[in-house]
Amino acid sequence: MEGQAISTLCTPALVVDLDKVKKNAQRMIERCQKMGVQLRPHMKTHKTLECADIMTGGSRRCIVVSTLAEACFYADHGFDDILYAYCLPFDKVERCALLSERLDLFQVLLDHPDALQQLKKRPLKDGRLWHVWLKIDCGNGRAGVLHSEPEALRLAQAIAGTEGVELTGVYAHCGNSYNCRGVEQIQAVAQETTTLTLQFMEKLKAFGIICKSSIGSTPSCSHPVKDMEQLSEVHPGNYVFYDTQQSVIGSCSLGDVAVRVLTRVIGHCPHRNQLLIDCGWTGISLDGAGKLPTGYAMIEGHPNLKLLSMTQEHGRVEPISGPLDYSKYPLGSMLTLIPYHSCASAVMHPVYHVHSEGRLLGKWTPTCGW
Amino acid sequence: MEGQAISTLCTPALVVDLDKVKKNAQRMIERCQKMGVQLRPHMKTHKTLECADIMTGGSRRCIVVSTLAEACFYADHGFDDILYAYCLPFDKVERCALLSERLDLFQVLLDHPDALQQLKKRPLKDGRLWHVWLKIDCGNGRAGVLHSEPEALRLAQAIAGTEGVELTGVYAHCGNSYNCRGVEQIQAVAQETTTLTLQFMEKLKAFGIICKSSIGSTPSCSHPVKDMEQLSEVHPGNYVFYDTQQSVIGSCSLGDVAVRVLTRVIGHCPHRNQLLIDCGWTGISLDGAGKLPTGYAMIEGHPNLKLLSMTQEHGRVEPISGPLDYSKYPLGSMLTLIPYHSCASAVMHPVYHVHSEGRLLGKWTPTCGW
Repeated sequence: MEGQAISTLCTPALVVDLDKVKKNAQRMIERCQKMGVQLRPHMKTHKTLECADIMTGGSRRCIVVSTLAEACFYADHGFDDILYAYCLPFDKVERCALLSERLDLFQVLLDHPDALQQLKKRPLKDGRLWHVWLKIDCGNGRAGVLHSEPEALRLAQAIAGTEGVELTGVYAHCGNSYNCRGVEQIQAVAQETTTLTLQFMEKLKAFGIICKSSIGSTPSCSHPVKDMEQLSEVHPGNYVFYDTQQSVIGSCSLGDVAVRVLTRVIGHCPHRNQLLIDCGWTGISLDGAGKLPTGYAMIEGHPNLKLLSMTQEHGRVEPISGPLDYSKYPLGSMLTLIPYHSCASAVMHPVYHVHSEGRLLGKWTPTCGW
Repeated sequence: MEGQAISTLCTPALVVDLDKVKKNAQRMIERCQKMGVQLRPHMKTHKTLECADIMTGGSRRCIVVSTLAEACFYADHGFDDILYAYCLPFDKVERCALLSERLDLFQVLLDHPDALQQLKKRPLKDGRLWHVWLKIDCGNGRAGVLHSEPEALRLAQAIAGTEGVELTGVYAHCGNSYNCRGVEQIQAVAQETTTLTLQFMEKLKAFGIICKSSIGSTPSCSHPVKDMEQLSEVHPGNYVFYDTQQSVIGSCSLGDVAVRVLTRVIGHCPHRNQLLIDCGWTGISLDGAGKLPTGYAMIEGHPNLKLLSMTQEHGRVEPISGPLDYSKYPLGSMLTLIPYHSCASAVMHPVYHVHSEGRLLGKWTPTCGW
């Protein structure tokens, strides 16, 4: 297939524009270099070796993952300095211990004293330390101990004071930047998360505790604020692909989005003024319901079309206004979907087709599961 | 892992109750035998060899699939008499031709004259015939030529009159039964679809055309009407697993649902009166948004809990009313989700864990992609 046009692919197919991936990755690398902050790119969006190589500039060091399956996959392929940024799951402590004993630097994360107890119960061999990040919540409202709770400081002290355990850093995810519209709002969230994290670091310092700090999210790292220079690390991930959601937030332009789902017209339904396409929710996911005027995705080059609904293998497309001109959409013709959320679309595909300017270069195979 | 309790699994994990699967499958086999109608079970829900064996009573014959990947997977493992019940995708005609030339009986489906032209352009070798089902729409509103359109009869005649092509049957999917509540409404849809299909068969007969007829959907085949005895085949699929959606529709009782997603508590958020669990949309899918009072799933044994929202690897759970008693949900404790839509949840899992009465028996590995 190499060298052939992407239009020769069977559909649905997820295609990755390698030039845009490299550009998105390089821009983030340079931005972080300029800030003097270590970039620890997140792998959750693509879960492939090839894209991880691009995001780490070939170093295969300093990554963050969302599942232990990703951690093992990268560890098995020569990656190291891996942060498993997920509140320590008690069923996976032994697997985490084995990775900690095997890699130069495997790092875990927690937000509760009970998790620290789990680590104490499983000391590492050969005098190795558990490298632990404390997750704090600076307004995101998902995981993490609230930055303002006395418990947060107590837990940091407990980690730092536990034998066999090292407090490696303080970690905050500013996923609340996904509610933003425009650079100003994004930077307000970036500023708030940074300020609260740095204040927390100061409080730790007062107790004689010095460790790293990291915040992240694609919106905030695409439009960083100056104070982020004081952080040790940032950990965005989605930016390597971007998506329609990020363009709506203001993280990127639509031209930066590196992934598409190719689909073909498989039905004409003039009695409903609709087309059927061969992309259902198995091809792009149900993420983005009600978020875009064009439905579950944007249809490239056809701003008047809406991906109205999907079943397992079918998508219903209708015009936003007016009657469909079926002569423009013959059966078998291709449509190109720009996903609402590339993380959600990518996870539906067992393989990604990589291209440059529409010519196929090869395939990337993501890892999956947990 | 065999013989161990399912509670030892790492989470999220999709578990399949083999006893319920066998019971659901056997009940459908017996129901169809009693009706004198051929059961052609749909594979789209599970996509595994093991479950296909159970659904076909070990014959490995007479199945229906939703993707060509499924067709190839089953063909490669000794299955035959396979109906690819998806409006002939023009990019996959050659692969369909190869399956038609290789299997005893590979069958395709179409609803448009342009698709028939595609078959004519690719005659099969050795005098083999394309076995073609005509898809008609009897009110479902997705694929299929409208049963009432003169075009439907013309297309049937064209298929029957084309050299190298055989009109094998007429196929209607009554997915509109998913809008029903209760047996009465389900049977009204089953009756209407059956009546319209049989009327269409009569019209064909008047033109001297005799072929098979098939309707399907889990609700209608779980509560068949007498006239369905006049059909050649039925083609339900989801019934082997069932799910919360089917219990709400009235296809089954909640006790019949054979799949669960196991998850664990990974966070306590008393400031939000929430728990975090390790099942995000990668573990159960976003299907069912806004459909259940308990959110994206039911949480077995905890009717007051709601799966409120999910991100990639996190689920937020809150009580429907009152404050959470965190002592009942310690970190690391397991919760059991009954999926809203088992087809959508199963497709998220690279492996299913099969058990009997909570003791692991082994793993099933589904096929994936297209």
